[in-house]
Amino acid sequence: MTDKIPLSALDAAFLLAETRSTPMHVAGLQIFNIPQGAPRHFVSELYAHMRDQPVTAAPFNYQVAGGLAGRLQPSWEIRDNVDLDYHFRFSALPHPGGERELGVLVSRLHSIHMDLSRPLWEFHLIEGLQHNRFAVYLKMHHALVDGMQAMKLLTLSDDPPGGFAPPIWAANLGDRFAHVPQGEGLLRRLPSIVRRELDALPSLARGVSTVAQAALGVSRDRDLTTVGQAPRTIFNAKISGQRRVATFLTSLNRVKEIGRAAGGTVNDVVLATCSGALRRYLEAQGQLPEKSLVAAVPVALSRDGGGAAGNAVTNLMARLGTDVADVRRRFDIILRSSDAGKKHLRDMTEAAALNYTMIVAAPAMLAVWMPELVEFTPPMYNLIISNVPGPREKIHFHGAELAAMYPVSQVAQGQALNMTVISYMDQLAFGFVACRDSVPSIQRLSGCMAESLDELESTFLPSGAARRVKGARPKERTPRKARGAAKAARKMPSKRPARSSRSR
Amino acid sequence: MTDKIPLSALDAAFLLAETRSTPMHVAGLQIFNIPQGAPRHFVSELYAHMRDQPVTAAPFNYQVAGGLAGRLQPSWEIRDNVDLDYHFRFSALPHPGGERELGVLVSRLHSIHMDLSRPLWEFHLIEGLQHNRFAVYLKMHHALVDGMQAMKLLTLSDDPPGGFAPPIWAANLGDRFAHVPQGEGLLRRLPSIVRRELDALPSLARGVSTVAQAALGVSRDRDLTTVGQAPRTIFNAKISGQRRVATFLTSLNRVKEIGRAAGGTVNDVVLATCSGALRRYLEAQGQLPEKSLVAAVPVALSRDGGGAAGNAVTNLMARLGTDVADVRRRFDIILRSSDAGKKHLRDMTEAAALNYTMIVAAPAMLAVWMPELVEFTPPMYNLIISNVPGPREKIHFHGAELAAMYPVSQVAQGQALNMTVISYMDQLAFGFVACRDSVPSIQRLSGCMAESLDELESTFLPSGAARRVKGARPKERTPRKARGAAKAARKMPSKRPARSSRSR
Repeated sequence: MTDKIPLSALDAAFLLAETRSTPMHVAGLQIFNIPQGAPRHFVSELYAHMRDQPVTAAPFNYQVAGGLAGRLQPSWEIRDNVDLDYHFRFSALPHPGGERELGVLVSRLHSIHMDLSRPLWEFHLIEGLQHNRFAVYLKMHHALVDGMQAMKLLTLSDDPPGGFAPPIWAANLGDRFAHVPQGEGLLRRLPSIVRRELDALPSLARGVSTVAQAALGVSRDRDLTTVGQAPRTIFNAKISGQRRVATFLTSLNRVKEIGRAAGGTVNDVVLATCSGALRRYLEAQGQLPEKSLVAAVPVALSRDGGGAAGNAVTNLMARLGTDVADVRRRFDIILRSSDAGKKHLRDMTEAAALNYTMIVAAPAMLAVWMPELVEFTPPMYNLIISNVPGPREKIHFHGAELAAMYPVSQVAQGQALNMTVISYMDQLAFGFVACRDSVPSIQRLSGCMAESLDELESTFLPSGAARRVKGARPKERTPRKARGAAKAARKMPSKRPARSSRSR
Repeated sequence: MTDKIPLSALDAAFLLAETRSTPMHVAGLQIFNIPQGAPRHFVSELYAHMRDQPVTAAPFNYQVAGGLAGRLQPSWEIRDNVDLDYHFRFSALPHPGGERELGVLVSRLHSIHMDLSRPLWEFHLIEGLQHNRFAVYLKMHHALVDGMQAMKLLTLSDDPPGGFAPPIWAANLGDRFAHVPQGEGLLRRLPSIVRRELDALPSLARGVSTVAQAALGVSRDRDLTTVGQAPRTIFNAKISGQRRVATFLTSLNRVKEIGRAAGGTVNDVVLATCSGALRRYLEAQGQLPEKSLVAAVPVALSRDGGGAAGNAVTNLMARLGTDVADVRRRFDIILRSSDAGKKHLRDMTEAAALNYTMIVAAPAMLAVWMPELVEFTPPMYNLIISNVPGPREKIHFHGAELAAMYPVSQVAQGQALNMTVISYMDQLAFGFVACRDSVPSIQRLSGCMAESLDELESTFLPSGAARRVKGARPKERTPRKARGAAKAARKMPSKRPARSSRSR
């Protein structure tokens, strides 16, 4: 132990928010193809090789000073003797080693709390995945990295041509990663809003939507969805500490083609696919509300817009049209709601955006310590749907190709489901995380996603859908077969959705 | 949820004692041989078969009422819809699937807290174990079962001849297992001693040994080891929540032969083997104290002795002679100390035995909430060495032979190492559990055990040791090869050591 680095107020808030029911870690799940002609025990040799390299790189040698006792006034200490065997773990899938077994293992790993008296990361190397593949599950505490930094860390496994990079915990990261105190700008002030809102609790409970709308001077734009319009759903429940994780993989080109035909962006098609899937899933559970679900979509406001500050992250409130059976009408609702939301955010002053972000985030922060709150306050929104840009080029790791990369995010009190999507090459990879106790059979959501996307395609691109049925398109959810697909350079929507979990 | 069953005061104390650093669960690790000619995916078929059978049997459907909120005045509720997929888990070992990989997995599983809002058990079926074997790790919270009940549950996997029993959570256990409120007799009064000792804290810190010796009216028998004679060791440290587990397997006949030649019981040879191993291990760490280590050996006092009550469980304090290099002299010290301890316990009145048990147990109970206590009070003893009788007959489970069965017990604040041994057929199987942070490289203790037993054998049975060197004796620690060994009916030492963890 040598140096001490103070935690920002926001990072400290993430530590304070760690309870049995709300562990504050995020993770990435990567699937690799074992190279052709690799030795029989490639993965265990990789494990032995990586295990030889001690932990020397920040933030993998950061530890909260004083353990739990330091939680109220925390700072980071740098450890020079990190117990690598604790953080770097070798696991295997039982027979038959398919997507189901991987999902069960990742659900378990994601349900286990981190030990706050050690550096706040775990790297799990997982062998025994069908079709000559292996997986990496990298888990980090939210106090250590935000979503975007975690994404950078995942891509640090990228080996240079003709050479192997050291493991991320031993890499000299240089400019590629710098641990800066988080919580600049808007976010820095979150903990004080928590205190302020605690004082204002009775009025918050009476009608948070009125307060919020008054604070924002909301216009009467009927397409604009703002806080307080979301119905109660099974997702807006008190959560336990156990998680289930599911995934869905599709092609970015396919989504783009649908978007072009329907007159929307990639993000609009993502929202429409999620909407159709949620409608199917909730209907099957007998839990579809009469009112449309509202999604919070994290967006980074651009400075060029003349509005809020550069680091401002806020939520676009998107009405999902889950109350409408017709696919075209549903897509139209999403399009108009999302356009109105973007216009609204553009027009907002910095101060108004600040209030808005805080009012949206406060109930989730409060509910950490008062889970019962979610039972007597209306949800601000029903779930977070987050779209994070990932790498466009193929990534290699010790000769193994990265076949797919899924986000595994967090849920919160009153927010029992999270849907996050990452792009990689021509892929869009969705990770769904849910509270095991309040959201039943989350794995069914993957099937609903496939059906919903088919439905969008057959509505807007009937010829494309016909091609797909005839088998000319690579099958969804089988990453190995999709490898040959064109590396389309992805144009992200200009609002650049990012830092999903920060904006809660 | 239907019925409510109150927890005994002691069971409630076990729930209250659950902290991040001191999870209160115990476990058993069983190794099975896959039957000859079994289908290729025998273990996953077994998993699928067992997974079909819902949880209907007590105590597997017991849950603490009200979750964490109910901890201060807890009672059990019976659940009729237990989520079997949560409790019954299928895992696999990574390559090469040897004893090392099994140890790593079990160490991890034993470090994970139980979810107190669900029934307090987990059944892990583990495939991928070398030499055509699989493993079962069964974990239960101490509030649900004591050590002896857990042992009964493990043997419930025993199939009747020519048929298969349902899994333990679906079995009609009838007379074989009845969940009786625990904590009858002596143990029932433990929580009150905690309160009493809290009042007396300053005097306890000043000199617990004086208090204890005065209370007991200890004679001047120089062989009698009682409280307050144990040196400080690395085992008597503040513990974290992370565990490491190691095992050692030997033959009961071999231990008996050494005991006969040396003039001691099986239990004396067990203590002598542990003593030699601890001496080697501590010496290698540069941590061997000048004074002898003192082990607490849980014993059930027999009613026939005319002394304490039938359910009385107390600790025999055994001086281990770790300060003596000579094997014969060390054995003699153990023999005399253990005999004096037995005589002392026999002569004690019930009231004195009660005081004695409480005085010995109190510091460990206090330290749960005040871990710093262990840093300024002397240890009452250095570690617990517990000997639990197991089944004598071969056990089968769906056609698979039980090849070995290891205990995986608990550690406590100030008691960072536990050594427990179970007998099964001709085997003595040791399970060592240690705090990962205060006891380094616990797996080396297994090697030290083998060397210590060899040393005892070559001292007391030079001809037997010569036979072993020539290879006539089955190799230690390879359960499959030991299978052919004679099923010697085991005569347990008359004091019947039992219920290890209850007596802490």
